[in-house]
Amino acid sequence: MPYSFPWTGLVTLAAVIIYGWTGIRVAQARARYDVKAPATTGNPDFERTFRVQANTGEQIIQFLPCLWLFAASFGDLWAAAIGVIWPVGRIIYILSYSKAAEKRGPGFGLTMLPTLILAIGALVGIAQRLI
Amino acid sequence: MPYSFPWTGLVTLAAVIIYGWTGIRVAQARARYDVKAPATTGNPDFERTFRVQANTGEQIIQFLPCLWLFAASFGDLWAAAIGVIWPVGRIIYILSYSKAAEKRGPGFGLTMLPTLILAIGALVGIAQRLI
Amino acid sequence: MPYSFPWTGLVTLAAVIIYGWTGIRVAQARARYDVKAPATTGNPDFERTFRVQANTGEQIIQFLPCLWLFAASFGDLWAAAIGVIWPVGRIIYILSYSKAAEKRGPGFGLTMLPTLILAIGALVGIAQRLI
Repeated sequence: MPYSFPWTGLVTLAAVIIYGWTGIRVAQARARYDVKAPATTGNPDFERTFRVQANTGEQIIQFLPCLWLFAASFGDLWAAAIGVIWPVGRIIYILSYSKAAEKRGPGFGLTMLPTLILAIGALVGIAQRLI
Repeated sequence: MPYSFPWTGLVTLAAVIIYGWTGIRVAQARARYDVKAPATTGNPDFERTFRVQANTGEQIIQFLPCLWLFAASFGDLWAAAIGVIWPVGRIIYILSYSKAAEKRGPGFGLTMLPTLILAIGALVGIAQRLI
Repeated sequence: MPYSFPWTGLVTLAAVIIYGWTGIRVAQARARYDVKAPATTGNPDFERTFRVQANTGEQIIQFLPCLWLFAASFGDLWAAAIGVIWPVGRIIYILSYSKAAEKRGPGFGLTMLPTLILAIGALVGIAQRLI
């Protein structure tokens, strides 16, 4: 929480704002490519924009719990220093996947990496506590 | 957590229960419109019910982190007072989108509004702490 | 957090890792059944794998807030003892739904059960505090 974890809170907000942005892009793509709700298919450009949002949702669900469990063991600054890679990687992912599906790899890797490090760290932190 | 944040916890549970309800509605719609898993398309009434659940998931992912980061800065009652708009707006959204896709606007706005206020507030709270 | 809630943290990590695994399975199924992104339909085996991930996401969003709100009222060990049913049920769900859509019931029930118990318990815990 802000008082003890301001930087982790800031990374959390950055991730949430980026996820919200992927939703705004879907709304814009609905208008631009004339894909009316509730449809989510019919135009490949829309579908990529739609999958960007879905994938960002899948990733943020994994990222935030790992970020905060890591912060609880290793403190605010370390969690935020590793966690900040996520928003950066996601912005790269969003912009490159929107252009072509084949280009989504590097940005995807850059958002998996911090989640993986934070998950392993959180596990280590808990193990140190229990053993 | 309940001891320090009972009302924020209550709003959180209300949001989760509403989200669970959208999932129950999808299961019912599968039976009613004969859309067998794993399909998620084929009947427009089913598709609207399905999108209601998906959109509620997208929104709750953004709402809960903002709600709790705001609560950490401004306390339980303020967070809950703003946050309670979310369950209300979502119920309106669920009932109106289920009738027709064009009617989903007002309920959607009423769930975006508290998330936006809480996000901005959380940012201000963290900034006050760091600066 | 690990210091006060190590077992609840461990259950959280188990749930997140299982959810991540459903995502890896989707990536593998894309290659195996030749369903290229951004498509999510076209092959029933892929679609089941895809729905397993989507449903696990829907369930983890409901599970984690209930788990932690319950832990705040009833402590780390009780939360983890009930919560550990979720990862077990989900593994059964993932393996059985991947085989056939009709087999997804028992595993689904085993992940709904702990979420329900934790939600009711969290509600009771908050009510005891407020009344």
